Amino acid sequence: MKNTFGTALSVTIFGESHGPAIGAVLDGLAPGLVVDEDFIRHQLALRRPSGLISTTRREADEFRIVSGVYEGRTTGSPLCILIPNADTKSGDYTTNIARPGHADYTAECKYHGYQDARGGGHFSGRVTAALVAAGAILLPALRQKGITIGTHASRLAGIDDAPFASDEATLTSQIKELNEMPFAVLDEAAGADMKAAIEAARSEGDSVGGVLETAIVGLPAGLGEPWFDSVESLLSHALFSIPAVKGVEFGDGFALADQRGSVANDALRVQEGRVVTLTNHNGGIGGGITSGMPVLFRCAIKPTPTIAKTQKTVDIKTNTEVDYAGRGRHDPCIVHRARVVVDSVAALVVADLLTQRYGTEGWCRE
Amino acid sequence: MKNTFGTALSVTIFGESHGPAIGAVLDGLAPGLVVDEDFIRHQLALRRPSGLISTTRREADEFRIVSGVYEGRTTGSPLCILIPNADTKSGDYTTNIARPGHADYTAECKYHGYQDARGGGHFSGRVTAALVAAGAILLPALRQKGITIGTHASRLAGIDDAPFASDEATLTSQIKELNEMPFAVLDEAAGADMKAAIEAARSEGDSVGGVLETAIVGLPAGLGEPWFDSVESLLSHALFSIPAVKGVEFGDGFALADQRGSVANDALRVQEGRVVTLTNHNGGIGGGITSGMPVLFRCAIKPTPTIAKTQKTVDIKTNTEVDYAGRGRHDPCIVHRARVVVDSVAALVVADLLTQRYGTEGWCRE
Amino acid sequence: MKNTFGTALSVTIFGESHGPAIGAVLDGLAPGLVVDEDFIRHQLALRRPSGLISTTRREADEFRIVSGVYEGRTTGSPLCILIPNADTKSGDYTTNIARPGHADYTAECKYHGYQDARGGGHFSGRVTAALVAAGAILLPALRQKGITIGTHASRLAGIDDAPFASDEATLTSQIKELNEMPFAVLDEAAGADMKAAIEAARSEGDSVGGVLETAIVGLPAGLGEPWFDSVESLLSHALFSIPAVKGVEFGDGFALADQRGSVANDALRVQEGRVVTLTNHNGGIGGGITSGMPVLFRCAIKPTPTIAKTQKTVDIKTNTEVDYAGRGRHDPCIVHRARVVVDSVAALVVADLLTQRYGTEGWCRE
Amino acid sequence: MKNTFGTALSVTIFGESHGPAIGAVLDGLAPGLVVDEDFIRHQLALRRPSGLISTTRREADEFRIVSGVYEGRTTGSPLCILIPNADTKSGDYTTNIARPGHADYTAECKYHGYQDARGGGHFSGRVTAALVAAGAILLPALRQKGITIGTHASRLAGIDDAPFASDEATLTSQIKELNEMPFAVLDEAAGADMKAAIEAARSEGDSVGGVLETAIVGLPAGLGEPWFDSVESLLSHALFSIPAVKGVEFGDGFALADQRGSVANDALRVQEGRVVTLTNHNGGIGGGITSGMPVLFRCAIKPTPTIAKTQKTVDIKTNTEVDYAGRGRHDPCIVHRARVVVDSVAALVVADLLTQRYGTEGWCRE
Repeated sequence: MKNTFGTALSVTIFGESHGPAIGAVLDGLAPGLVVDEDFIRHQLALRRPSGLISTTRREADEFRIVSGVYEGRTTGSPLCILIPNADTKSGDYTTNIARPGHADYTAECKYHGYQDARGGGHFSGRVTAALVAAGAILLPALRQKGITIGTHASRLAGIDDAPFASDEATLTSQIKELNEMPFAVLDEAAGADMKAAIEAARSEGDSVGGVLETAIVGLPAGLGEPWFDSVESLLSHALFSIPAVKGVEFGDGFALADQRGSVANDALRVQEGRVVTLTNHNGGIGGGITSGMPVLFRCAIKPTPTIAKTQKTVDIKTNTEVDYAGRGRHDPCIVHRARVVVDSVAALVVADLLTQRYGTEGWCRE
Repeated sequence: MKNTFGTALSVTIFGESHGPAIGAVLDGLAPGLVVDEDFIRHQLALRRPSGLISTTRREADEFRIVSGVYEGRTTGSPLCILIPNADTKSGDYTTNIARPGHADYTAECKYHGYQDARGGGHFSGRVTAALVAAGAILLPALRQKGITIGTHASRLAGIDDAPFASDEATLTSQIKELNEMPFAVLDEAAGADMKAAIEAARSEGDSVGGVLETAIVGLPAGLGEPWFDSVESLLSHALFSIPAVKGVEFGDGFALADQRGSVANDALRVQEGRVVTLTNHNGGIGGGITSGMPVLFRCAIKPTPTIAKTQKTVDIKTNTEVDYAGRGRHDPCIVHRARVVVDSVAALVVADLLTQRYGTEGWCRE
Repeated sequence: MKNTFGTALSVTIFGESHGPAIGAVLDGLAPGLVVDEDFIRHQLALRRPSGLISTTRREADEFRIVSGVYEGRTTGSPLCILIPNADTKSGDYTTNIARPGHADYTAECKYHGYQDARGGGHFSGRVTAALVAAGAILLPALRQKGITIGTHASRLAGIDDAPFASDEATLTSQIKELNEMPFAVLDEAAGADMKAAIEAARSEGDSVGGVLETAIVGLPAGLGEPWFDSVESLLSHALFSIPAVKGVEFGDGFALADQRGSVANDALRVQEGRVVTLTNHNGGIGGGITSGMPVLFRCAIKPTPTIAKTQKTVDIKTNTEVDYAGRGRHDPCIVHRARVVVDSVAALVVADLLTQRYGTEGWCRE
Repeated sequence: MKNTFGTALSVTIFGESHGPAIGAVLDGLAPGLVVDEDFIRHQLALRRPSGLISTTRREADEFRIVSGVYEGRTTGSPLCILIPNADTKSGDYTTNIARPGHADYTAECKYHGYQDARGGGHFSGRVTAALVAAGAILLPALRQKGITIGTHASRLAGIDDAPFASDEATLTSQIKELNEMPFAVLDEAAGADMKAAIEAARSEGDSVGGVLETAIVGLPAGLGEPWFDSVESLLSHALFSIPAVKGVEFGDGFALADQRGSVANDALRVQEGRVVTLTNHNGGIGGGITSGMPVLFRCAIKPTPTIAKTQKTVDIKTNTEVDYAGRGRHDPCIVHRARVVVDSVAALVVADLLTQRYGTEGWCRE
């Protein structure tokens, strides 16, 4: 459904960039999950722009849970979390001009002028804060069951980060560290280069993109379905909902296309009584179903569309050609901010898969 | 849902590689669509293995429509199409050994030994014939509305095909030609090299993968939704259902991650009264919604998992380590066969999007 | 889905009786629909308890639309409407005792003590205010297309109201009048008797129920589907979501069971070029699909469960038997208040059916 | 969805009365359920017309399971069951005349002449055989978990059967007996009167209807959801899909409308450590959730529409008024045949609810 995703556990999102509030409704939650408001704040802070490398729009992201929580725990009823929009400066936005790389023109085609075009309206990356809040309800419950999710900027402005560790113990501690970092990279030096590249792009009135790589560790084998509910299908569906994601690959992804079968096939072995694969080219998924190995995927994040450079475009009211240069507060890069959105969306999919497989409470009973 | 996909127009698939039949149910079809059985046969033939570069399993793919069609046209009731399995040699398959790269181990984790493991059972690529048959009901109706879909092997065993033309007229005629070719490439010489590479892999007991690139021309602007029903979300969901697809990207996809905003943003212009983009880095989709430009995407196809080379794996009944070499009839490459599956799946998504937008019949009324 | 209903147009509801707010998210709305806040207030007022025959809980029902509306019209993005809970007196409720006729015991079985039991929590009739607000977005758009919906208390405390008129013109004017009445009956004298019966029940510490009868006039023929999306299936699904509804029948409903085919079959005739039925025993629906005749249905509303009389029940924390008498503010009858909930739920189903059939905007384009 | 119903466990149906076959696809089945083909035959026989009181159409109902079963047990993959149509005499049906009480006119409005009108096409009661076959996969698995479902003709042609027993032990043995009876009544004498009334109606060229009453015993408390997935919502949705059902009520249903709260409220007590209600006016459901008491509901079945008497109607091709008298083979009553359809549909809903609550296998693990 349009703004609802999930089968046994679903999220519904709403809101516009410059409207009164954005928010999410989580439905199908097990009762009794501890809701950690500090953790929600922590996650929202990771998404929030900060410092020179991001837009100077400042949102306190004061959220309010208006249903589904009682005495600090989920009730099992739908949980609605609201995040009011505070710092909105609509005057900054010229709404008749279709900003290149934005959804302004396609929105006009779909909504015929009735869309709230201010700041991108419902298309705004601002709405991802609702996804982050929703994910922050689930991530602690998953962690308690030994499932951790972490993402790093594996590439940004053409600069590569160090790869994830292949052994699960190291990978788990990498995830733990990444989850605390505002700019999530495994290699500090690469991170410094990336920030410099972002700053360079900004100074030239331009923007950069990158690739986010995610690992999910601790999933049981046997989640997902052979066809339309393959783990790849569900994750990609949710990931491509995030604005700016233009590619998703699992395991070695596009690199698999150049491999031979003798390389791409992950050999199976028995380690301490458990079946494992010696390599993980397939990203922990076979036939759409988890194998118990870490689930690995990457998202391509396109460069932020709003740039200060002058671009050719059209006025969608008059259908005339105009020049346009972005003003207002904009990110020269959103890769590092999108990271926590990816983690949150992954948490939603994983919790849904667990609920489908083990029932409303079966996956998280203490 | 597990084996059902689509909102206003849905497909449900069923069947196992060595069971009596596979099939599909299409629901939500407009009444009065002409059903062209010859075209269904044509499409099934494109998917069917043929010649040296494919498995020698021979399926006549004699299908039977058992509901939803009356006097050569759809009735509007669910259309069930059955494809009996004829040439099944179960003896070829060793069912206790988890074949590397296959779903045998993950199926065991999910179904605890109750799965029909013969030939991969419900995980078998054989089931894609049902998707092809379903797509063949829709493709002619789309064509009649000026919407054409075509796919080529843009890369195979590391060899690149020529790219799609950037102008719509040439692209449309390329699509038309590709749709008739058993081995769909734009550059004949590249095609010959690819076939040689497949043959080389086979002779070494190995297999190869590749990338399929698809263009959808003629879509109206304004299809899709900002978030969970973005065109990218729906297409990727369906595409990742196809076994062997491990990556999906739209427009320039992962290459966008290395571009600057000033390049990645497609400038808008007015041509003959219609808003177009001068480039199409975003693959005809903005904010999840079609722009009216060709929708472009690529799927990474991993190398066929079954190979003659000896591999390390486990016996899933005894949890002991064994060596395994594929016997039986197998493809050293399925890229060229998967092409028509991609087209079919794209047709299903597009027809669903049109039905949602314009109603049951509104999109295809003559 | 649990708290989401609808296919092309869906509503998601959330909130608890004594939580911060209740609310609804409407998704799939056509862009450009006029949002009439006065009408929303009017509808909420019809649901609100008033006077002696209802609970003395007073809710201003100050609602706030936080998304999906711009300059007085729907944008096409999800519309979230919030209704804060103001007048909550939790002290009135004893939460360990399973009140007979309420969901307290079944909630305990489902949520294991984590439910917000205050005032019935998410099970509270209070949540229907969100459905009323959602319906109030759609009813004016339907009316503009010539579709009107009206409900009367056809029976209350064993007292019958006059029946709906059988001719469409009179029926339409009856609907118009009912839509303005706080206590919706066709026969004023019957209404006075009903109110007296409610008051009598209250004075005896008891409560009464009744039957609501609804007519939908102006629907095009051909809406709905033969099987699982029959108009009866969709309407009953939504109607049985309303607390206290324990029966739903279409046309003559249970009385049809005693009729012979020669009576129950509605004869068809041609009037002014349009096919009509001479009678409407089948309530405007044949084979699950609308015939163009008024859609007629009735809902059985059980008596309000909370009564002042002493009842036998159990303490669900200690599993011991106790006596219980309702205190707090309660309705001796909710039939007249449930009326506008039924209208609203019917509006949601009808607008969804129209959207499925004619597309996102096709059904309401001016 | 149109021809698909269920969330965690779904059924998809297809087929027309005079097409090659009807059938069903069950998806979401736990792996390892024993498939009892004799029981499927038994259930289909209960639905099949027999003797003087039914149509003389004879269908062997030879079914064929083409997927999802291996070595006598479900695999967990979608199970497709086909029932070929053998004894079809299309010549008996006049397809241009809208038979009163049938879906012919509404089908024309929806499908514009493309429907397969022979024998009612996809609207035919014949399609319920697919539902019966699907239900027959699930009923034995439910029985093994202590859940039994039974239905009797509580009223037929105005004649009442004896009521269900109120104690669970007697009720369970009543269900067991009903499940073996071709004409399911609790009181043999009432059954004889009903058969005489059917025969009388037939001899007068007319038909009769009735009421089916169903009990589901052994359900755990805590199934279902407060709002849109209330047990009443889900059951009624599925029940109103059955052609001829025009009313559904739970517990005392419409009679509750005339009761006072002090009567309608079921008092709770503790019996042998388990919370029970002393009465069951609410049919085992509170707040949409099962209480552990028997779930009780009734369906109103309208009289069979096809009768030999002459009726007024229209020719839908020419829009002219004509007289029509049914020829061909028709039932003067379908109440007794619809019984097993109701049981089957109830089994689908119950198995779906259990799967949602306890996971894919959790509800039926041995």
